[in-house]
This record gives sequence, structure tokens and C-alpha cells, in this order.
Amino acid sequence: MHTPGAPFSNYGQPSTHEKEAIRWISANSGAPGNGISWSPLHKLEGIITPNGLHFERHHNGVPAIDPERHRLRLHGLVRNPISFGVDDLLRYPMVSRICFLECGGNSNAGWHEEPIQTPAGYFHGLASCSEWTGVPLSTLLDEAGLLPEARWLIAEGADAAAMNISIPVEKALEDTLVALYQNGERIRPENGYPIRLILPGWEAVLSVKWLHLLQAAKEPVMARNETAKYTELQPDGKARQFTFLMDAKSFITHPSPGYRLRGTGLFQISGLAWSGRGKIRKVEVSADGGQSWAEAALQEPILSKCFTRFRLPWRWDGSPRVLKSRAIDETGYQQPERATLIAERGRNGYFHYNAIVSWAVATDGSLSHVYA
Amino acid sequence: MHTPGAPFSNYGQPSTHEKEAIRWISANSGAPGNGISWSPLHKLEGIITPNGLHFERHHNGVPAIDPERHRLRLHGLVRNPISFGVDDLLRYPMVSRICFLECGGNSNAGWHEEPIQTPAGYFHGLASCSEWTGVPLSTLLDEAGLLPEARWLIAEGADAAAMNISIPVEKALEDTLVALYQNGERIRPENGYPIRLILPGWEAVLSVKWLHLLQAAKEPVMARNETAKYTELQPDGKARQFTFLMDAKSFITHPSPGYRLRGTGLFQISGLAWSGRGKIRKVEVSADGGQSWAEAALQEPILSKCFTRFRLPWRWDGSPRVLKSRAIDETGYQQPERATLIAERGRNGYFHYNAIVSWAVATDGSLSHVYA
Repeated sequence: MHTPGAPFSNYGQPSTHEKEAIRWISANSGAPGNGISWSPLHKLEGIITPNGLHFERHHNGVPAIDPERHRLRLHGLVRNPISFGVDDLLRYPMVSRICFLECGGNSNAGWHEEPIQTPAGYFHGLASCSEWTGVPLSTLLDEAGLLPEARWLIAEGADAAAMNISIPVEKALEDTLVALYQNGERIRPENGYPIRLILPGWEAVLSVKWLHLLQAAKEPVMARNETAKYTELQPDGKARQFTFLMDAKSFITHPSPGYRLRGTGLFQISGLAWSGRGKIRKVEVSADGGQSWAEAALQEPILSKCFTRFRLPWRWDGSPRVLKSRAIDETGYQQPERATLIAERGRNGYFHYNAIVSWAVATDGSLSHVYA
Repeated sequence: MHTPGAPFSNYGQPSTHEKEAIRWISANSGAPGNGISWSPLHKLEGIITPNGLHFERHHNGVPAIDPERHRLRLHGLVRNPISFGVDDLLRYPMVSRICFLECGGNSNAGWHEEPIQTPAGYFHGLASCSEWTGVPLSTLLDEAGLLPEARWLIAEGADAAAMNISIPVEKALEDTLVALYQNGERIRPENGYPIRLILPGWEAVLSVKWLHLLQAAKEPVMARNETAKYTELQPDGKARQFTFLMDAKSFITHPSPGYRLRGTGLFQISGLAWSGRGKIRKVEVSADGGQSWAEAALQEPILSKCFTRFRLPWRWDGSPRVLKSRAIDETGYQQPERATLIAERGRNGYFHYNAIVSWAVATDGSLSHVYA
């Protein structure tokens, strides 16, 4: 306290003591712009993910886009094809919404034969939650005059991979946003600057980044990410396709693997729950491997298709324990046990893993991931 | 689109094209760690202020605090004085709350004889809004055993200025947080790392940063910031002291000075409203200098002591216009016109300026600040 502190800054940065609160990068070494980075959800609290830690999934790196030159073209089965500059879009009526985005491949290590041992965010952190602000896509479709025969909108990003995907018209009209702002500021490059689609509650591959094309069409485009990927073989030999909705899910962020309980006594269990179907109605927590369950407190406000923070006090007696959480959403859908999910979906799964997660507490207070 | 993009990052940064979305620094050149920086609220949308752009007010710079060595001491009129390490506090039950912080001196240029001409955020941007997570102070006071004769808590920060201030016990028990997280991540250095008090709805000088001492006492400490500052002479010759509550306020962030309407037609008016008394009930907007008012849409969720985003479509006909907004909170309190505020408070004012703000639109589409 005897020396003056650091000066003011135009844009702040985290403390240098918080070096572990970073995205964990898992890029393809042969194609470094292709990969993922995980949000460190085990290091975070509340429901907002700060922009610097929102998860990433890129196919060919983060493009450098000049917003003055970027345009969004809306064409195909519309009466009046339109091309919007970013400044044009900024003039339209906007709405804000706090909602999660989750990669369809999040938590896929849960399909492994053996439980993966990583910090919880590097297992479930292809999910993040922000306040997104933008123009409802329905407003732009209304202006373009969508023709009645249009059933799909084919969206394409301006990255070098030209990622594209098909969106049903019903979702485009329901709650899809052409987003320009994330957590107050303009969207960052890795999250789609200057324009990103946001489809609340649906797998994030549909929330196309660097959006530059929207084509209204009769049929889906059958792009790689709706045929070779984001589909999976079922026990009956058929494949699941267009599995857009992210089902209810939850996990305990604290305590979780990597943390060690220092002695017995009172702890607070804290975690995240969310559902693509709407609001979380209830989260239950077990400290005995699922024999008994207690209802956790849900932090207000509880918002639809949004992270919900749950918390519960828990007294550890020093004995081995297995902690679990299960989410129930407002439709009554309940997060399944792992065995149930595998019985339904088989062993070929890769996407949409949302089973109950179990953390074992050892007598020394250390935590590990178990199938229990 | 023909070259691969930038690689993944452990912690993201804003687009280099958004160079104007920065805090504007106004530091004392003789004492550079003493001053303020303003949130660029005219560049933001929604209600969340990203952490890098939260306003700052420091007296002797930003201290470099090692969280392993930092302690919070709770002493004075308590049965059991306690000293908490940061890890101790992280074990306590936490709650989250999205709320605004506003400096008591925010918008004080409104007291000037002539209307200041700056971007709106550099006039009203000593206010920001975050999701704060921490331990209710009531929990810690309960553990320490607050004695009935304690009426005040004297809080001190660990900066080189050792800023201190007195907090009434009632507020400490009502909704004061010992915060550790801001917008999901640990609080940043300039916002009080590792521990900050948060007093929702009260002037931000009470939300002591780098908190290291809390002393329960019978009387206030009569620190500089509750005697020489944050008080003001009234028309009757008496001074206002302990004017904790931030009254209802609003202003239009878009369009605002610095922006130019490109041609006539439809625009969206967008702005922020907040009240230290609770929720915003209504925001009205005038485009004719206050002769007629229309009710704006309020973005859900509307939270207590929190920024509320209001929006209204507006068709500009090319004629000179004066835009205003006025907030009414759930207690019925209505943001006053400037003349009313000055009639009540006199001309010696510096703190707690919350009058209605007027932006004049000229025929060329440019905007300026006017008293109207």
C-alpha cells in the first residue's frame, strides 16, 4: 500500500494471477485454424461468460473482416433480394437476449469407455452464455418478402472454409437473431465479427459466424455439417439428422476435478443447468451417487434457453462420495443417467451427449470424474 | 475468404476496427493514478458492460495485489473478529446479481452553465452494469457476531490511498455483497481484485475496491469522501451528507452526439434507464422537446437496481428535433427536468445530477447536447 498503483487503461485485462482462467485450445496440428477452444467453466461463477472466454469452434481460423466492406446478402426465394451493409443493419430495430450457445459436440468425451480426467470446463465448456443484441431475422425476411414455397434458409459465413448450413424457416421466424453485439460490445472476431446468427437453444453450428449470405430455398443444402457431421448412427441402423435442439443438461462446476476439499465441513455446491427447450424448472443434487436427491436453489432471473446457476450447501463428512446433478426443464424433460442415454442412442454416439455427470470425492478431498 | 484466418486464443480481444469503443481517461496530470475513466455507453447495446469497459475511479492507481497474501479483516464491535483469506471466502455460499454501479459524480457536467459537447458515454458513463457474484456481507457479519451497538461499518481498500468510507449497518445486512466475480470471471484489478464490496443502488464510492478492512463501529468515520466530497451545499445553506441512493435516471445512447442521421426515415431510439430504488417501471421518450411523450418498450428481464434497455421506433422527417427520455421507477419517482433539479438543489451542485437529458437533431442529421 506504500507505492502508487498502475495507471488507467482504455481497455482492461484480467489479473495476471488468474492465468488458469483461459480457454483450452485443441487445434488440429496439421490445420491449425481447425479446432476448438473450451470455456474454463470450472473457473467461472454466475451465468455470464466473459467475451474473452467464450468457446470457439473454427474450421479455417478467424477471418479479418473490414466492417466497412462486409455485406449480408439475402436472396433466393424472396420477392426483393437485399444486400445490407453493417451500418444499414445497425439502423434496424434491435432486441437483446441472454442465452447459451452450445456446440452439438460438447461433452462428447462422455461417450468414451473410460471417464475422461480433465477440469470440468475442458469437458463441458463448448457451451457459453452471453447477452446477444441484434436484429430479429424475421424483420429482414419480412422486408425481403419471403415467398411461401421457401422452407429453408441456407446461411454461409465469410471464413475461408465458407461454412454453410440449413435452417428451417420456422426457426428463422421464431427467435433467430442477426446479432451485432455480445455482452454490450460489438461481437469479437472469433465470435463472428461483424455479424453472427444466433439460434437460441439449438446446436451452435447453426449460429453461423461472419454471416454474409442467407439464401431462401425449398430444400436444405445438405452441407457437410448436416450430413457427414452432426448426424449419428442409431442402434437400429438409421442415422439421426437435423437434431437441432440441445436437450436439458447440468453439471457441478464447484467442487469439480482439479479442486481439493481442504478438510471436512460446509461447502457450497455450485453448477450450471440449461435447456434448449426453455426454462430450467428444477435442479436436483445427489451426494450419494444418486440414491437420494435434494433440490438446489436456482439463481434468479431464470431465463429461457439460458444458463441457470444452481447452488446448494453441503456438509462433507470426510467419507468417499459421488456428487451428481440433474436438470429438469419446464417441459418436464429430465436429464438422463448415462446408462439410459447409451441404451437409447447406442455406442456410436458423438454429438448431443447430455447425461448426468458424476464427480467422485476421495477421502483426501480430491475429485475425479467417474461413471457411477 | 481465400486465406486461412487467425489462430485460436486463450483469451480474446475486441476487433481492431472497434478502436472507438474505449474508456476515455481523465486523469490528474500531477497525480496520474488519480482520476476517472468513462464507459463508452454510446458505443454499447444491451445492459451488460463488458469488464474491459467498466468505468474506473481511482485515487492512487490500481494496486498489484497477490491474492495468496491478501486478507479481509472484520473487527471492531463484533464478538469474534475474523480474518479471511481469498480462498476462505471462495468456500462461502455465494449469490449473483446483475446490477449497476454509478459514481455519485456521474453526469456532473450537467451542472455547467453551457451544455457539454462530448459523446454521451463521456458525459454519463461513470455508470456500468455487471453480473456480480460473491458472499452476502450479512453471512460474514453473522459469523463474526455483530454487536447490537454497531451502527456503521467502516470499509477500507488496500490501495495506496487507503480509501475508506462508512456504511450503515442496515444496508450491510440488506443486500451488500463481498464480491469476487464480475461477469463470470474473477474481478479485474481496476475493479477491485481480489475483493470488492458491492452496494446495489448506492453511489459507487461505497462499493470499496481492494477491500481489506471492515470495522463495525458506533459512529461513521467522517472520511474525506463523506465530508469534503460527496456532500454539497444546498440553497438553504445546509449541506447534504450521506446521500447514498442513486435516483432514477435515463438517457438516449442512440442516436446521440457524434452520430449523424443519414437521411430521413425510420430509426430506433435506444437508451438506458436505472434507479437505485428498485425496478424501472416506465420510460417515456419525446421527439419534440417534451411537448409530447411516448412510452418506450423495456427489454426483459427488468431487474431491480439494474440497467434497463429501452427502445422506440422513430421516424425522422428532416426537421429540427429535440429528443429526451425520462425514467419512472417502481416507487413512482420520476426523473426531473433540469430546471426542476436546479430549483431544488441550487447552483452549487456537483454530485447526484440526474436530470432529463436533451439531444438536439439538426436538419443535417447531426446531434448535439442542449438544455431544452
